[in-house]
Amino acid sequence: MNKNTNKPVKIIPLGGLEQIGMNITAIEYEDSIIVIDCGLSFPEDEMLGIDLVIPDVTYLKDNADKVKGLVVTHGHEDHIGAIPYVENEINMPIYATKLTMGLIEHKLREHNNLNNTKRKIVKHGQIINLGCFRIEFIRTNHSIVDAAALAIYTPAGIIVHTGDFKVDYTPVFGEVIDLPRFGELGKKGVLALMADSTNVERPGYTQSEKTVGKTFDNLFAENKEHRIIIATFASNVDRVQQIINSAYKYGRKVVVEGRSMVNVIQTASELGYINIPDKTLIEIERINSYPDEQIVLITTGSQGENMAALSRIAASIHSKITIKPGDLVIFSSNPIPGNEKAVFKVINELELKGAHVVFQDTHVSGHACQEELKLMYALTKPKYAIPVHGEYRHLKRHAELAVEMGIPKENVKIMSTGDVLEVSEDVFEVTGRVQAQGIMVDGLGVGDVGNIVLRDRQQLSQNGLLIVVVTLEKESGQLIAGPDIVSRGFVYVRESENLMEECKDVVYDAMEECFYNGVNDWSKIKTTIKDALSDLLWKRTKRSPMILPIITEV
Amino acid sequence: MNKNTNKPVKIIPLGGLEQIGMNITAIEYEDSIIVIDCGLSFPEDEMLGIDLVIPDVTYLKDNADKVKGLVVTHGHEDHIGAIPYVENEINMPIYATKLTMGLIEHKLREHNNLNNTKRKIVKHGQIINLGCFRIEFIRTNHSIVDAAALAIYTPAGIIVHTGDFKVDYTPVFGEVIDLPRFGELGKKGVLALMADSTNVERPGYTQSEKTVGKTFDNLFAENKEHRIIIATFASNVDRVQQIINSAYKYGRKVVVEGRSMVNVIQTASELGYINIPDKTLIEIERINSYPDEQIVLITTGSQGENMAALSRIAASIHSKITIKPGDLVIFSSNPIPGNEKAVFKVINELELKGAHVVFQDTHVSGHACQEELKLMYALTKPKYAIPVHGEYRHLKRHAELAVEMGIPKENVKIMSTGDVLEVSEDVFEVTGRVQAQGIMVDGLGVGDVGNIVLRDRQQLSQNGLLIVVVTLEKESGQLIAGPDIVSRGFVYVRESENLMEECKDVVYDAMEECFYNGVNDWSKIKTTIKDALSDLLWKRTKRSPMILPIITEV
Repeated sequence: MNKNTNKPVKIIPLGGLEQIGMNITAIEYEDSIIVIDCGLSFPEDEMLGIDLVIPDVTYLKDNADKVKGLVVTHGHEDHIGAIPYVENEINMPIYATKLTMGLIEHKLREHNNLNNTKRKIVKHGQIINLGCFRIEFIRTNHSIVDAAALAIYTPAGIIVHTGDFKVDYTPVFGEVIDLPRFGELGKKGVLALMADSTNVERPGYTQSEKTVGKTFDNLFAENKEHRIIIATFASNVDRVQQIINSAYKYGRKVVVEGRSMVNVIQTASELGYINIPDKTLIEIERINSYPDEQIVLITTGSQGENMAALSRIAASIHSKITIKPGDLVIFSSNPIPGNEKAVFKVINELELKGAHVVFQDTHVSGHACQEELKLMYALTKPKYAIPVHGEYRHLKRHAELAVEMGIPKENVKIMSTGDVLEVSEDVFEVTGRVQAQGIMVDGLGVGDVGNIVLRDRQQLSQNGLLIVVVTLEKESGQLIAGPDIVSRGFVYVRESENLMEECKDVVYDAMEECFYNGVNDWSKIKTTIKDALSDLLWKRTKRSPMILPIITEV
Repeated sequence: MNKNTNKPVKIIPLGGLEQIGMNITAIEYEDSIIVIDCGLSFPEDEMLGIDLVIPDVTYLKDNADKVKGLVVTHGHEDHIGAIPYVENEINMPIYATKLTMGLIEHKLREHNNLNNTKRKIVKHGQIINLGCFRIEFIRTNHSIVDAAALAIYTPAGIIVHTGDFKVDYTPVFGEVIDLPRFGELGKKGVLALMADSTNVERPGYTQSEKTVGKTFDNLFAENKEHRIIIATFASNVDRVQQIINSAYKYGRKVVVEGRSMVNVIQTASELGYINIPDKTLIEIERINSYPDEQIVLITTGSQGENMAALSRIAASIHSKITIKPGDLVIFSSNPIPGNEKAVFKVINELELKGAHVVFQDTHVSGHACQEELKLMYALTKPKYAIPVHGEYRHLKRHAELAVEMGIPKENVKIMSTGDVLEVSEDVFEVTGRVQAQGIMVDGLGVGDVGNIVLRDRQQLSQNGLLIVVVTLEKESGQLIAGPDIVSRGFVYVRESENLMEECKDVVYDAMEECFYNGVNDWSKIKTTIKDALSDLLWKRTKRSPMILPIITEV
């Protein structure tokens, strides 16, 4: 513990709190900043048409000369997804373990900025120097292999950031989380612990990944006569490994479907994180060369995502796979909140086509439950607790757990995105705020869709629109063509001809009123038309379409 | 069992299968039709702007002279919600128990057709005659009081329809489900059982409603210093009764908030289904006349519904209630699939304002689990099983359960909405289909929004729109005004002026091309403009807004 300095280190989350995803945190001390993770979020329901959300890194750009590098805990989208966008803005060297780096490189290659970005692979146990910081990568377990916690040695003390973690005493690949090292750090003295809050509402321990392997073996044994289709998260390499193990044991060929699944398996396989026996993997084109009972299909779509392979299979719009009666479909996943209806829809479609769907005991979480979190606190014995990775309700429960573990209430802080927390032996307080908000990405546009555009999309989605075009004569200001009325997403026009005629009449009247009152300001004319039409439409339909009067002049 | 006739009875579900909600089933024999329930559905996610969905009753209208009446099992929206709409189309007398009828009358009054509709209150155990049918109302338990199963005596045999039910040996109000009567019917001989499938995926028994009362008592005892706010389903009169009991016991006043909650409590109270001690209920305006620890607020919004009272309270836009640190908020409900994110959002907002939120052991289901369903099969011993009230995955599990209970596989039928199932001792097959589909209601419009309108709303919601107005001279066909470009929900225009200029150029070019090629067919000109613009916009933005070229002529 560094007690010589009174100067606090700054912890600045630039995303990831309040809402799952978009994890990114800056740690700052004098002229050094390091960035932990750089993830994306998927859009909220009300962000109509938005593809993804990335963090606002204005603060990092404004302090670009201080930024020493990006350290990444693991290869999930909510921790690496924004890297190609952010590297376009500030070129930071990236430090990560091998598989994590493999996945990052794949992303950079897709965005054509692999060569511009310095990268360094770090091993568990290794320490790197970035500015005034030393950062140690510590082995953890998670639902993707090669995950790391970080011990950040700062002049103000040691900060431990767990990344996303669980304790798996019997991991499928690699070793158990390096609990002794967390204990050593605890003995040295940890200033602050930033730990994963995802499962803090769940009592007990998260099960070992290996339990899922046993379930697979049982299901394979019980279904020797059926084709087996398994949907899971593309990034869960251990899960895929276990499916391949069961497939090999029961003499089945494995077909992999779904772009992200193919990518991850290829990367993991190249880097030695997955072990696929010879002749086990076959191309999807060859699926019909084997009898059904010798096939396992591993696919994306476990969340009911619209365009994912399993959803297309269920909807009978997949070009290569058709569900047959007797197929066993295993969902090796839990629905992420918000996806339940989509998942159930896919299940209904699959069962309607005769498949048998299983989704019990076929998934375990990658995040620590309450007892594991308590273990982390008991080992690291931090002075301060800063819950991370969760919605507010998770952070709050986590804060309560930290207090149960003996941390004084005033030493536990629930931060908001953008807060600047100053931390030292003597100081623990939020002293400022920086700009930090999600930036919406829509197609090629980064940040060009704002609240006005979203509000318009919202109105259009609920009630459609009605366009009124009138042409005025320049000199007289008199109507010489129109009103023409065009509607979309409002009512089925063929069946509403009377209403459209009424609309025209109302516009005529409104125009006439303007003319006789000498109103020739176009914006006033438009408002008059709009008000008159919106009254009429509400009276007739109780709907409020967007009304767009357009005036042209010749 | 009536073995004299060979003629089968027809069972025709006009809604309610494949998707929860919109329960309505016709039972037909020669010149008699009765209708069981008449509910509505809430719109699917892709039904943008739709308020609710009601059944298509074309088949009933085409056979209006045969329709003898509507028998209703209980007062939930998915069983009574479409009554005012359907009664407008075919005037049927309605038969229901007292509370159910009270809720139906409230609905009819709101739609101004109470006086046109014949109504008769039926008691549990009572039998009514409708055409060639006799219908017996049998007491059941459910999450709304006064629920009934129906035994329908047809010339082809007895059909038992459970309605929505559970077995509650210690109900809050009224008596235990009339299990002996189901046993008697079983001894007589039941031709077909149509039973509730909602909870068929859950093993064991559903807990008694009374268990929630105990949890309330505990929470009230532990939180004597805090204001208590409880969100639950408006229609769960027993739940409200238990909250009132705890409130009375602990000396608190009760405030009721949310339109539907106020309605149901008023109806239940008038009809004697809820017992509110004197001076327990106070007006919301008087809430501040009492200290916080003497207040319980019962509110709607347990599903995170946008405009419900609790959501407005959480978002600090409720005019009368403000969350204070220390408030205890109890969710006495489970999120219905699809509502999870909305519920979590409300929880986050409440906790952020300092409330403590509880949602464990504070709810029980109103539907039978596997063991209760088995009990129903064991008592009624039906020849045929027809699972109802569930998505396909539920119906399928229910069919498996029926087979486990000894019903031959060929005597179990999973029906689709619109199927005509003929049933007699000798016959059990789907012999036809009738028109039966949801009709979308949007504002005052019933059925005027179809797939084209929805598709437009979908496109508008994702990418917005771009309108191009050009004015041509009648004689020459030459452009004399425009192109004017208006966009909404596409990009923030102020920041995209260059793109808008490019759009104009592209339209100019397209118009010129048409002019020089002698194209003067407006639809061809529009297509040329559209194609040129959509190419440009995709190249520049990777988005596909709706493009609407409008041509006027002077």
